[in-house]
Amino acid sequence: MKSSAKTLVLKIGGTEGVNFPSICKDIARTVNEHERLVIVHGGSQKANDLGEALGHPPRFVTSPSGFTSRYTDRKTLEIFIMAVNGYLNTTLTAELQSSGVNALGISGVDGKLLVGRRKPAIRINENGRQKVLRDDHTGTITSVNTALVDSLLEEGYIPVIAPLAISEQSEPLNVDADRVAAMIAASLQADTLMLLTAVPGILNAFPDESSLISKLDQSEIKSALNLVQGRMKKKVLGAKEALAGNVRRVIIADGRIEHPVSKALNGGGTEISS
Amino acid sequence: MKSSAKTLVLKIGGTEGVNFPSICKDIARTVNEHERLVIVHGGSQKANDLGEALGHPPRFVTSPSGFTSRYTDRKTLEIFIMAVNGYLNTTLTAELQSSGVNALGISGVDGKLLVGRRKPAIRINENGRQKVLRDDHTGTITSVNTALVDSLLEEGYIPVIAPLAISEQSEPLNVDADRVAAMIAASLQADTLMLLTAVPGILNAFPDESSLISKLDQSEIKSALNLVQGRMKKKVLGAKEALAGNVRRVIIADGRIEHPVSKALNGGGTEISS
Repeated sequence: MKSSAKTLVLKIGGTEGVNFPSICKDIARTVNEHERLVIVHGGSQKANDLGEALGHPPRFVTSPSGFTSRYTDRKTLEIFIMAVNGYLNTTLTAELQSSGVNALGISGVDGKLLVGRRKPAIRINENGRQKVLRDDHTGTITSVNTALVDSLLEEGYIPVIAPLAISEQSEPLNVDADRVAAMIAASLQADTLMLLTAVPGILNAFPDESSLISKLDQSEIKSALNLVQGRMKKKVLGAKEALAGNVRRVIIADGRIEHPVSKALNGGGTEISS
Repeated sequence: MKSSAKTLVLKIGGTEGVNFPSICKDIARTVNEHERLVIVHGGSQKANDLGEALGHPPRFVTSPSGFTSRYTDRKTLEIFIMAVNGYLNTTLTAELQSSGVNALGISGVDGKLLVGRRKPAIRINENGRQKVLRDDHTGTITSVNTALVDSLLEEGYIPVIAPLAISEQSEPLNVDADRVAAMIAASLQADTLMLLTAVPGILNAFPDESSLISKLDQSEIKSALNLVQGRMKKKVLGAKEALAGNVRRVIIADGRIEHPVSKALNGGGTEISS
Protein backbone atom coordinates (compact mmCIF):
# COMPACT_ATOMS: atom_id res chain seq x y z
CA MET A 1 0.00 0.00 0.00
CA LYS A 2 1.25 3.45 -0.88
CA SER A 3 1.82 6.23 1.62
CA SER A 4 -1.44 7.61 2.94
CA ALA A 5 0.05 11.10 2.95
CA LYS A 6 -1.13 11.72 -0.58
CA THR A 7 -4.46 9.97 -0.64
CA LEU A 8 -7.49 12.10 -1.50
CA VAL A 9 -11.07 10.89 -1.33
CA LEU A 10 -13.24 13.35 -3.22
CA LYS A 11 -17.01 13.34 -2.95
CA ILE A 12 -18.95 15.19 -5.62
CA GLY A 13 -22.44 16.21 -4.54
CA GLY A 14 -25.44 15.47 -6.70
CA THR A 15 -27.27 18.67 -5.73
CA GLU A 16 -28.38 21.20 -8.31
CA GLY A 17 -25.63 23.73 -9.04
CA VAL A 18 -22.65 21.42 -8.61
CA ASN A 19 -20.58 21.86 -11.77
CA PHE A 20 -19.53 18.39 -12.94
CA PRO A 21 -17.57 19.46 -16.06
CA SER A 22 -15.58 22.03 -14.08
CA ILE A 23 -14.81 19.47 -11.33
CA CYS A 24 -13.76 16.85 -13.89
CA LYS A 25 -11.38 19.27 -15.60
CA ASP A 26 -9.83 20.22 -12.28
CA ILE A 27 -9.46 16.55 -11.31
CA ALA A 28 -7.61 15.95 -14.58
CA ARG A 29 -5.31 18.92 -13.87
CA THR A 30 -4.48 17.78 -10.33
CA VAL A 31 -4.69 13.98 -10.54
CA ASN A 32 -0.93 13.53 -10.53
CA GLU A 33 -0.52 15.46 -7.28
CA HIS A 34 -2.15 12.56 -5.43
CA GLU A 35 -0.68 9.12 -5.16
CA ARG A 36 -4.17 7.75 -4.71
CA LEU A 37 -7.44 9.41 -5.72
CA VAL A 38 -10.88 7.93 -5.18
CA ILE A 39 -14.11 9.63 -6.24
CA VAL A 40 -17.53 9.16 -4.65
CA HIS A 41 -20.64 10.86 -5.99
CA GLY A 42 -24.19 11.63 -4.94
CA GLY A 43 -27.17 12.04 -7.20
CA SER A 44 -30.08 13.49 -5.25
CA GLN A 45 -31.23 15.92 -7.93
CA LYS A 46 -31.24 13.30 -10.68
CA ALA A 47 -33.09 10.82 -8.47
CA ASN A 48 -35.67 13.51 -7.65
CA ASP A 49 -36.14 14.33 -11.34
CA LEU A 50 -36.56 10.68 -12.35
CA GLY A 51 -38.99 10.07 -9.48
CA GLU A 52 -41.09 13.04 -10.59
CA ALA A 53 -41.04 11.87 -14.22
CA LEU A 54 -42.18 8.39 -13.16
CA GLY A 55 -44.98 9.68 -10.95
CA HIS A 56 -43.21 8.63 -7.75
CA PRO A 57 -41.83 11.89 -6.32
CA PRO A 58 -39.26 11.77 -3.53
CA ARG A 59 -40.29 11.87 0.10
CA PHE A 60 -37.79 13.27 2.57
CA VAL A 61 -38.11 12.38 6.21
CA THR A 62 -36.41 13.74 9.33
CA SER A 63 -35.18 11.58 12.18
CA PRO A 64 -35.81 12.57 15.82
CA SER A 65 -32.18 13.78 15.97
CA GLY A 66 -32.75 16.07 12.98
CA PHE A 67 -31.11 14.18 10.11
CA THR A 68 -32.92 14.34 6.78
CA SER A 69 -32.99 11.34 4.44
CA ARG A 70 -34.80 10.01 1.38
CA TYR A 71 -37.51 7.52 2.33
CA THR A 72 -36.59 4.60 0.08
CA ASP A 73 -39.42 2.19 -0.57
CA ARG A 74 -38.93 -0.55 -3.17
CA LYS A 75 -39.90 1.71 -6.09
CA THR A 76 -37.69 4.57 -4.84
CA LEU A 77 -34.76 2.16 -4.53
CA GLU A 78 -35.22 1.21 -8.19
CA ILE A 79 -35.36 4.90 -9.17
CA PHE A 80 -32.29 5.68 -7.06
CA ILE A 81 -30.34 2.81 -8.64
CA MET A 82 -31.25 3.90 -12.17
CA ALA A 83 -30.57 7.60 -11.64
CA VAL A 84 -27.48 7.38 -9.47
CA ASN A 85 -25.68 4.16 -10.36
CA GLY A 86 -27.05 4.15 -13.92
CA TYR A 87 -27.12 7.64 -15.28
CA LEU A 88 -24.84 9.67 -13.03
CA ASN A 89 -22.10 7.10 -12.50
CA THR A 90 -21.89 6.43 -16.25
CA THR A 91 -21.94 10.06 -17.37
CA LEU A 92 -19.46 11.14 -14.68
CA THR A 93 -17.12 8.31 -15.67
CA ALA A 94 -17.39 9.29 -19.35
CA GLU A 95 -16.89 12.98 -18.52
CA LEU A 96 -13.73 12.17 -16.53
CA GLN A 97 -12.43 10.08 -19.42
CA SER A 98 -13.05 12.94 -21.81
CA SER A 99 -10.82 15.04 -19.50
CA GLY A 100 -8.12 12.37 -19.67
CA VAL A 101 -8.76 10.60 -16.35
CA ASN A 102 -8.76 6.77 -16.49
CA ALA A 103 -12.05 6.49 -14.60
CA LEU A 104 -13.83 3.25 -13.70
CA GLY A 105 -17.33 3.44 -12.25
CA ILE A 106 -18.66 0.93 -9.75
CA SER A 107 -21.10 0.93 -6.87
CA GLY A 108 -20.84 -0.54 -3.40
CA VAL A 109 -22.71 -3.61 -4.65
CA ASP A 110 -19.88 -4.56 -7.02
CA GLY A 111 -17.51 -7.08 -5.50
CA LYS A 112 -19.19 -6.24 -2.17
CA LEU A 113 -17.23 -3.01 -2.08
CA LEU A 114 -19.57 -1.68 0.61
CA VAL A 115 -21.43 -4.07 2.88
CA GLY A 116 -24.20 -2.46 4.88
CA ARG A 117 -26.86 -3.19 7.41
CA ARG A 118 -30.42 -2.48 6.38
CA LYS A 119 -32.43 -0.44 8.86
CA PRO A 120 -35.42 -2.65 9.70
CA ALA A 121 -37.53 0.42 10.41
CA ILE A 122 -36.86 4.15 10.64
CA ARG A 123 -38.28 6.55 13.17
CA ILE A 124 -39.27 9.93 11.84
CA ASN A 125 -40.73 13.18 13.11
CA GLU A 126 -43.79 14.27 11.16
CA ASN A 127 -46.09 17.15 12.13
CA GLY A 128 -44.66 17.10 15.63
CA ARG A 129 -45.26 13.37 16.12
CA GLN A 130 -42.96 10.37 15.94
CA LYS A 131 -43.83 7.68 13.39
CA VAL A 132 -42.20 4.41 12.34
CA LEU A 133 -41.71 3.67 8.63
CA ARG A 134 -41.05 0.19 7.28
CA ASP A 135 -40.22 -1.01 3.74
CA ASP A 136 -37.21 1.29 3.82
CA HIS A 137 -34.17 0.23 1.79
CA THR A 138 -31.54 2.46 3.32
CA GLY A 139 -28.63 1.24 5.38
CA THR A 140 -25.45 2.05 7.20
CA ILE A 141 -22.09 0.72 6.05
CA THR A 142 -20.41 -1.93 8.16
CA SER A 143 -17.37 -2.75 6.02
CA VAL A 144 -15.36 -1.56 3.03
CA ASN A 145 -13.58 -3.93 0.63
CA THR A 146 -10.35 -1.93 0.71
CA ALA A 147 -8.51 -4.61 -1.29
CA LEU A 148 -10.77 -3.95 -4.28
CA VAL A 149 -10.13 -0.20 -4.18
CA ASP A 150 -6.40 -0.82 -3.82
CA SER A 151 -6.26 -3.26 -6.72
CA LEU A 152 -8.10 -0.87 -9.05
CA LEU A 153 -5.73 1.95 -8.05
CA GLU A 154 -2.72 -0.29 -8.59
CA GLU A 155 -3.94 -1.14 -12.09
CA GLY A 156 -4.08 2.59 -12.83
CA TYR A 157 -7.84 3.20 -12.61
CA ILE A 158 -9.52 6.02 -10.71
CA PRO A 159 -12.53 4.44 -8.96
CA VAL A 160 -15.80 6.40 -9.28
CA ILE A 161 -18.13 5.06 -6.63
CA ALA A 162 -21.94 5.27 -6.55
CA PRO A 163 -23.55 5.28 -3.08
CA LEU A 164 -25.13 1.84 -2.92
CA ALA A 165 -24.24 -0.92 -0.49
CA ILE A 166 -25.12 -4.60 -0.39
CA SER A 167 -26.67 -6.12 2.73
CA GLU A 168 -25.59 -9.42 4.27
CA GLN A 169 -28.77 -10.77 2.62
CA SER A 170 -27.54 -9.45 -0.76
CA GLU A 171 -30.11 -6.67 -1.06
CA PRO A 172 -28.96 -3.38 -2.63
CA LEU A 173 -29.26 -0.47 -0.17
CA ASN A 174 -29.36 3.30 -0.60
CA VAL A 175 -26.56 4.70 1.55
CA ASP A 176 -25.58 8.28 2.22
CA ALA A 177 -22.80 9.36 -0.15
CA ASP A 178 -21.07 11.68 2.35
CA ARG A 179 -20.77 8.87 4.85
CA VAL A 180 -19.68 6.46 2.11
CA ALA A 181 -16.86 8.86 1.28
CA ALA A 182 -15.97 9.13 4.97
CA MET A 183 -15.86 5.34 5.39
CA ILE A 184 -13.70 4.91 2.30
CA ALA A 185 -11.35 7.70 3.42
CA ALA A 186 -10.95 6.02 6.81
CA SER A 187 -10.44 2.59 5.24
CA LEU A 188 -7.67 3.99 3.00
CA GLN A 189 -6.24 6.07 5.88
CA ALA A 190 -6.53 9.04 3.54
CA ASP A 191 -4.85 12.34 4.21
CA THR A 192 -7.82 14.36 2.96
CA LEU A 193 -11.54 13.85 2.52
CA MET A 194 -13.08 16.57 0.35
CA LEU A 195 -16.84 17.07 0.08
CA LEU A 196 -17.81 19.34 -2.83
CA THR A 197 -21.33 20.75 -2.69
CA ALA A 198 -23.48 23.74 -3.71
CA VAL A 199 -22.44 26.04 -0.85
CA PRO A 200 -18.96 27.39 0.02
CA GLY A 201 -18.68 25.28 3.20
CA ILE A 202 -20.20 25.43 6.66
CA LEU A 203 -21.96 28.77 7.10
CA ASN A 204 -22.37 30.45 10.44
CA ALA A 205 -25.60 32.08 9.26
CA PHE A 206 -27.04 29.98 6.40
CA PRO A 207 -27.72 31.04 3.63
CA ASP A 208 -25.36 34.02 4.02
CA GLU A 209 -22.32 32.82 2.06
CA SER A 210 -20.12 35.51 3.58
CA SER A 211 -20.50 33.77 6.95
CA LEU A 212 -18.20 30.86 5.92
CA ILE A 213 -16.40 29.17 8.78
CA SER A 214 -12.97 28.45 7.39
CA LYS A 215 -11.55 26.28 10.17
CA LEU A 216 -12.94 23.93 12.79
CA ASP A 217 -11.26 21.43 15.03
CA GLN A 218 -12.63 18.14 16.25
CA SER A 219 -13.82 19.63 19.57
CA GLU A 220 -16.07 22.05 17.68
CA ILE A 221 -17.89 19.42 15.63
CA LYS A 222 -20.63 18.88 18.16
CA SER A 223 -21.66 22.53 18.11
CA ALA A 224 -21.35 22.56 14.31
CA LEU A 225 -23.77 19.61 14.15
CA ASN A 226 -26.27 21.69 16.10
CA LEU A 227 -25.66 24.78 13.97
CA VAL A 228 -26.22 23.28 10.52
CA GLN A 229 -29.45 22.08 8.95
CA GLY A 230 -30.61 19.84 6.14
CA ARG A 231 -28.09 17.97 4.04
CA MET A 232 -25.12 19.73 5.66
CA LYS A 233 -25.79 17.76 8.84
CA LYS A 234 -24.80 14.50 7.12
CA LYS A 235 -21.61 16.11 5.83
CA VAL A 236 -20.59 17.18 9.31
CA LEU A 237 -21.45 13.71 10.59
CA GLY A 238 -19.31 12.24 7.77
CA ALA A 239 -16.48 14.59 8.76
CA LYS A 240 -16.73 13.43 12.36
CA GLU A 241 -16.63 9.77 11.32
CA ALA A 242 -13.67 10.34 8.99
CA LEU A 243 -11.62 12.11 11.68
CA ALA A 244 -12.49 9.37 14.17
CA GLY A 245 -11.11 6.97 11.54
CA ASN A 246 -7.78 8.82 11.43
CA VAL A 247 -8.30 10.87 8.29
CA ARG A 248 -6.13 13.96 8.84
CA ARG A 249 -8.53 16.60 7.56
CA VAL A 250 -11.93 17.04 5.95
CA ILE A 251 -12.65 19.94 3.60
CA ILE A 252 -16.24 20.90 2.81
CA ALA A 253 -16.10 23.24 -0.18
CA ASP A 254 -17.81 24.82 -3.15
CA GLY A 255 -18.44 22.58 -6.18
CA ARG A 256 -20.06 25.30 -8.29
CA ILE A 257 -16.92 27.26 -9.14
CA GLU A 258 -13.93 26.98 -11.50
CA HIS A 259 -10.98 24.96 -10.18
CA PRO A 260 -12.97 23.69 -7.18
CA VAL A 261 -10.48 20.99 -6.16
CA SER A 262 -7.37 23.16 -6.26
CA LYS A 263 -9.11 26.02 -4.46
CA ALA A 264 -10.38 23.71 -1.72
CA LEU A 265 -6.89 22.24 -1.27
CA ASN A 266 -5.50 25.77 -0.95
CA GLY A 267 -7.66 27.10 1.82
CA GLY A 268 -11.10 27.40 0.24
CA GLY A 269 -14.06 25.98 2.10
CA THR A 270 -14.30 24.76 5.68
CA GLU A 271 -11.35 22.69 6.86
CA ILE A 272 -12.01 20.40 9.80
CA SER A 273 -9.05 18.72 11.42
CA SER A 274 -8.25 16.87 14.58
CA MET B 1 -3.17 -15.81 -18.59
CA LYS B 2 -4.88 -19.09 -17.79
CA SER B 3 -5.62 -21.79 -20.32
CA SER B 4 -8.39 -20.75 -22.67
CA ALA B 5 -9.73 -24.30 -22.67
CA LYS B 6 -11.95 -23.57 -19.72
CA THR B 7 -13.05 -20.02 -20.41
CA LEU B 8 -16.78 -19.44 -20.73
CA VAL B 9 -18.37 -16.15 -21.80
CA LEU B 10 -22.04 -16.28 -20.92
CA LYS B 11 -24.52 -13.76 -22.28
CA ILE B 12 -27.87 -13.49 -20.53
CA GLY B 13 -30.61 -12.02 -22.68
CA GLY B 14 -32.78 -9.20 -21.42
CA THR B 15 -35.89 -10.43 -23.25
CA GLU B 16 -39.10 -11.22 -21.39
CA GLY B 17 -39.15 -14.82 -20.20
CA VAL B 18 -35.45 -15.21 -19.47
CA ASN B 19 -35.25 -16.54 -15.92
CA PHE B 20 -32.55 -14.58 -14.10
CA PRO B 21 -32.83 -16.33 -10.69
CA SER B 22 -32.63 -19.76 -12.30
CA ILE B 23 -29.60 -18.74 -14.38
CA CYS B 24 -27.85 -17.22 -11.34
CA LYS B 25 -28.36 -20.40 -9.30
CA ASP B 26 -26.98 -22.53 -12.13
CA ILE B 27 -23.98 -20.21 -12.52
CA ALA B 28 -23.25 -20.63 -8.80
CA ARG B 29 -23.50 -24.42 -9.15
CA THR B 30 -21.14 -24.56 -12.15
CA VAL B 31 -18.79 -21.63 -11.55
CA ASN B 32 -15.91 -23.83 -10.40
CA GLU B 33 -16.01 -25.89 -13.61
CA HIS B 34 -14.62 -22.89 -15.49
CA GLU B 35 -11.21 -21.40 -14.94
CA ARG B 36 -12.54 -18.11 -16.22
CA LEU B 37 -16.17 -17.02 -16.40
CA VAL B 38 -17.36 -13.68 -17.75
CA ILE B 39 -21.01 -12.62 -17.87
CA VAL B 40 -22.55 -10.17 -20.33
CA HIS B 41 -26.21 -9.15 -20.17
CA GLY B 42 -28.82 -7.44 -22.31
CA GLY B 43 -31.78 -5.47 -21.07
CA SER B 44 -34.16 -4.81 -23.93
CA GLN B 45 -37.36 -5.48 -22.00
CA LYS B 46 -36.42 -3.24 -19.08
CA ALA B 47 -35.35 -0.44 -21.44
CA ASN B 48 -38.68 -0.77 -23.29
CA ASP B 49 -40.64 -0.61 -20.03
CA LEU B 50 -38.76 2.45 -18.75
CA GLY B 51 -39.15 4.20 -22.11
CA GLU B 52 -42.91 3.58 -22.03
CA ALA B 53 -43.13 4.82 -18.44
CA LEU B 54 -41.26 8.01 -19.36
CA GLY B 55 -43.38 8.69 -22.43
CA HIS B 56 -40.54 7.89 -24.83
CA PRO B 57 -41.38 4.41 -26.16
CA PRO B 58 -38.75 2.44 -28.05
CA ARG B 59 -38.46 2.63 -31.80
CA PHE B 60 -36.98 -0.35 -33.58
CA VAL B 61 -35.54 0.06 -37.04
CA THR B 62 -34.41 -2.45 -39.65
CA SER B 63 -31.27 -2.05 -41.73
CA PRO B 64 -31.31 -2.77 -45.50
CA SER B 65 -29.61 -6.11 -44.73
CA GLY B 66 -32.42 -7.06 -42.32
CA PHE B 67 -30.88 -6.42 -38.89
CA THR B 68 -33.17 -4.92 -36.26
CA SER B 69 -31.88 -2.41 -33.73
CA ARG B 70 -33.10 0.14 -31.19
CA TYR B 71 -32.99 3.66 -32.59
CA THR B 72 -31.05 5.45 -29.85
CA ASP B 73 -31.54 9.19 -29.78
CA ARG B 74 -30.12 11.17 -26.83
CA LYS B 75 -33.15 10.51 -24.63
CA THR B 76 -33.22 6.79 -25.50
CA LEU B 77 -29.51 6.54 -24.65
CA GLU B 78 -30.24 7.98 -21.21
CA ILE B 79 -33.12 5.49 -20.75
CA PHE B 80 -30.94 2.61 -21.94
CA ILE B 81 -28.13 3.57 -19.54
CA MET B 82 -30.52 3.80 -16.58
CA ALA B 83 -32.40 0.58 -17.32
CA VAL B 84 -29.52 -1.60 -18.46
CA ASN B 85 -26.38 -0.33 -16.70
CA GLY B 86 -28.34 0.99 -13.73
CA TYR B 87 -31.15 -1.35 -12.86
CA LEU B 88 -30.30 -4.63 -14.57
CA ASN B 89 -26.56 -4.65 -13.98
CA THR B 90 -27.05 -3.87 -10.28
CA THR B 91 -29.85 -6.36 -9.65
CA LEU B 92 -28.11 -9.13 -11.61
CA THR B 93 -24.91 -8.53 -9.65
CA ALA B 94 -26.83 -8.63 -6.35
CA GLU B 95 -28.73 -11.76 -7.43
CA LEU B 96 -25.45 -13.52 -8.30
CA GLN B 97 -24.00 -12.53 -4.94
CA SER B 98 -27.05 -13.93 -3.17
CA SER B 99 -26.27 -17.24 -4.96
CA GLY B 100 -22.69 -17.07 -3.70
CA VAL B 101 -20.96 -15.74 -6.84
CA ASN B 102 -18.43 -12.94 -6.26
CA ALA B 103 -19.92 -10.73 -8.98
CA LEU B 104 -18.68 -7.28 -9.98
CA GLY B 105 -20.77 -5.23 -12.40
CA ILE B 106 -19.25 -2.80 -14.87
CA SER B 107 -20.09 -1.49 -18.32
CA GLY B 108 -17.90 -1.00 -21.37
CA VAL B 109 -17.49 2.66 -20.36
CA ASP B 110 -15.60 1.74 -17.17
CA GLY B 111 -11.85 1.80 -17.62
CA LYS B 112 -12.58 1.93 -21.37
CA LEU B 113 -13.41 -1.77 -21.26
CA LEU B 114 -15.12 -1.49 -24.66
CA VAL B 115 -14.09 1.23 -27.09
CA GLY B 116 -16.49 1.69 -29.97
CA ARG B 117 -17.06 3.73 -33.08
CA ARG B 118 -20.26 5.72 -33.22
CA LYS B 119 -22.28 5.32 -36.40
CA PRO B 120 -22.56 8.83 -37.82
CA ALA B 121 -25.87 7.91 -39.46
CA ILE B 122 -27.85 4.72 -39.90
CA ARG B 123 -29.69 3.61 -43.00
CA ILE B 124 -33.03 1.97 -42.42
CA ASN B 125 -35.85 0.44 -44.44
CA GLU B 126 -39.23 1.93 -43.59
CA ASN B 127 -42.43 1.27 -45.53
CA GLY B 128 -40.41 -0.07 -48.44
CA ARG B 129 -38.17 3.00 -48.64
CA GLN B 130 -34.64 3.67 -47.45
CA LYS B 131 -34.16 6.51 -44.97
CA VAL B 132 -31.16 7.92 -43.12
CA LEU B 133 -31.40 8.58 -39.37
CA ARG B 134 -29.00 10.83 -37.48
CA ASP B 135 -28.66 11.57 -33.73
CA ASP B 136 -28.15 7.85 -33.21
CA HIS B 137 -25.97 6.81 -30.27
CA THR B 138 -25.24 3.22 -31.22
CA GLY B 139 -21.85 1.92 -32.17
CA THR B 140 -19.70 -1.04 -33.06
CA ILE B 141 -16.86 -2.17 -30.87
CA THR B 142 -13.31 -1.61 -32.05
CA SER B 143 -11.32 -2.82 -29.03
CA VAL B 144 -11.63 -4.69 -25.75
CA ASN B 145 -9.52 -3.87 -22.66
CA THR B 146 -8.64 -7.52 -22.04
CA ALA B 147 -6.17 -6.56 -19.29
CA LEU B 148 -9.02 -5.17 -17.19
CA VAL B 149 -11.09 -8.36 -17.53
CA ASP B 150 -8.04 -10.45 -16.71
CA SER B 151 -7.13 -8.42 -13.64
CA LEU B 152 -10.68 -8.66 -12.24
CA LEU B 153 -10.66 -12.44 -12.83
CA GLU B 154 -7.26 -12.75 -11.18
CA GLU B 155 -8.55 -10.90 -8.12
CA GLY B 156 -11.37 -13.44 -7.88
CA TYR B 157 -14.27 -11.39 -9.25
CA ILE B 158 -16.76 -12.55 -11.88
CA PRO B 159 -17.23 -9.57 -14.23
CA VAL B 160 -20.86 -8.78 -15.11
CA ILE B 161 -20.77 -6.53 -18.16
CA ALA B 162 -23.49 -4.12 -19.36
CA PRO B 163 -23.58 -3.45 -23.13
CA LEU B 164 -22.29 0.10 -23.34
CA ALA B 165 -19.12 1.23 -25.07
CA ILE B 166 -17.22 4.50 -24.98
CA SER B 167 -16.33 6.28 -28.22
CA GLU B 168 -12.94 7.78 -29.00
CA GLN B 169 -14.65 11.11 -28.19
CA SER B 170 -15.69 9.70 -24.77
CA GLU B 171 -19.39 9.44 -25.58
CA PRO B 172 -21.28 6.45 -24.13
CA LEU B 173 -22.74 4.24 -26.88
CA ASN B 174 -25.47 1.61 -26.94
CA VAL B 175 -23.88 -1.55 -28.34
CA ASP B 176 -25.43 -4.92 -29.10
CA ALA B 177 -24.95 -7.29 -26.15
CA ASP B 178 -24.63 -10.44 -28.30
CA ARG B 179 -21.81 -8.88 -30.27
CA VAL B 180 -20.22 -7.54 -27.06
CA ALA B 181 -20.17 -11.10 -25.72
CA ALA B 182 -18.68 -12.32 -29.01
CA MET B 183 -15.93 -9.68 -28.93
CA ILE B 184 -15.07 -10.46 -25.32
CA ALA B 185 -15.03 -14.21 -26.02
CA ALA B 186 -12.65 -13.63 -28.92
CA SER B 187 -10.44 -11.30 -26.89
CA LEU B 188 -10.14 -13.93 -24.12
CA GLN B 189 -9.74 -16.74 -26.67
CA ALA B 190 -12.62 -18.44 -24.87
CA ASP B 191 -13.50 -22.04 -25.41
CA THR B 192 -17.25 -21.39 -25.32
CA LEU B 193 -19.56 -18.46 -25.92
CA MET B 194 -23.07 -19.15 -24.63
CA LEU B 195 -26.04 -16.97 -25.53
CA LEU B 196 -29.08 -17.62 -23.31
CA THR B 197 -32.38 -16.30 -24.63
CA ALA B 198 -36.14 -16.92 -24.63
CA VAL B 199 -36.17 -19.64 -27.33
CA PRO B 200 -34.46 -23.06 -27.27
CA GLY B 201 -31.91 -22.07 -29.95
CA ILE B 202 -32.05 -21.61 -33.73
CA LEU B 203 -35.37 -22.90 -35.02
CA ASN B 204 -35.81 -24.26 -38.53
CA ALA B 205 -39.45 -23.13 -38.52
CA PHE B 206 -39.85 -20.31 -35.99
CA PRO B 207 -41.82 -20.30 -33.66
CA ASP B 208 -42.10 -24.11 -33.69
CA GLU B 209 -39.78 -25.03 -30.82
CA SER B 210 -39.67 -28.67 -31.91
CA SER B 211 -37.79 -27.53 -35.03
CA LEU B 212 -34.58 -26.81 -33.06
CA ILE B 213 -31.37 -27.13 -35.06
CA SER B 214 -28.96 -28.75 -32.63
CA LYS B 215 -25.72 -28.44 -34.61
CA LEU B 216 -24.34 -26.13 -37.25
CA ASP B 217 -20.85 -25.69 -38.60
CA GLN B 218 -19.21 -22.50 -39.78
CA SER B 219 -20.07 -23.20 -43.45
CA GLU B 220 -23.77 -23.22 -42.57
CA ILE B 221 -23.82 -19.83 -40.85
CA LYS B 222 -24.59 -17.91 -44.03
CA SER B 223 -27.77 -19.85 -44.67
CA ALA B 224 -28.68 -19.63 -40.98
CA LEU B 225 -28.37 -15.83 -41.20
CA ASN B 226 -30.91 -15.91 -44.02
CA LEU B 227 -33.21 -18.31 -42.18
CA VAL B 228 -33.57 -16.43 -38.90
CA GLN B 229 -35.41 -13.19 -38.20
CA GLY B 230 -35.50 -10.43 -35.62
CA ARG B 231 -33.14 -10.51 -32.69
CA MET B 232 -31.84 -14.00 -33.54
CA LYS B 233 -30.05 -12.49 -36.55
CA LYS B 234 -27.67 -10.57 -34.26
CA LYS B 235 -26.97 -13.72 -32.27
CA VAL B 236 -25.99 -15.62 -35.40
CA LEU B 237 -23.85 -12.65 -36.46
CA GLY B 238 -22.23 -12.69 -33.00
CA ALA B 239 -21.61 -16.43 -33.38
CA LYS B 240 -19.96 -15.84 -36.74
CA GLU B 241 -17.72 -13.10 -35.29
CA ALA B 242 -16.76 -15.23 -32.29
CA LEU B 243 -15.78 -18.23 -34.44
CA ALA B 244 -13.81 -15.93 -36.75
CA GLY B 245 -12.02 -14.79 -33.58
CA ASN B 246 -11.03 -18.38 -32.72
CA VAL B 247 -13.68 -19.15 -30.13
CA ARG B 248 -14.12 -22.94 -30.37
CA ARG B 249 -17.91 -23.08 -30.14
CA VAL B 250 -20.98 -20.95 -29.68
CA ILE B 251 -24.10 -22.29 -27.98
CA ILE B 252 -27.43 -20.49 -28.38
CA ALA B 253 -29.77 -21.94 -25.77
CA ASP B 254 -32.86 -21.59 -23.62
CA GLY B 255 -32.66 -19.16 -20.69
CA ARG B 256 -36.20 -19.83 -19.47
CA ILE B 257 -35.62 -23.28 -17.97
CA GLU B 258 -34.10 -24.79 -14.83
CA HIS B 259 -30.33 -25.47 -15.00
CA PRO B 260 -29.97 -23.55 -18.27
CA VAL B 261 -26.16 -23.36 -18.21
CA SER B 262 -25.53 -27.04 -17.45
CA LYS B 263 -28.12 -28.15 -19.99
CA ALA B 264 -26.65 -25.95 -22.70
CA LEU B 265 -23.14 -27.26 -21.97
CA ASN B 266 -24.47 -30.81 -22.26
CA GLY B 267 -26.04 -30.67 -25.68
CA GLY B 268 -29.05 -28.40 -25.20
CA GLY B 269 -29.58 -25.57 -27.65
CA THR B 270 -27.87 -24.96 -30.97
CA GLU B 271 -24.13 -25.56 -31.02
CA ILE B 272 -22.19 -23.80 -33.74
CA SER B 273 -18.57 -24.75 -34.21
CA SER B 274 -15.87 -24.31 -36.78
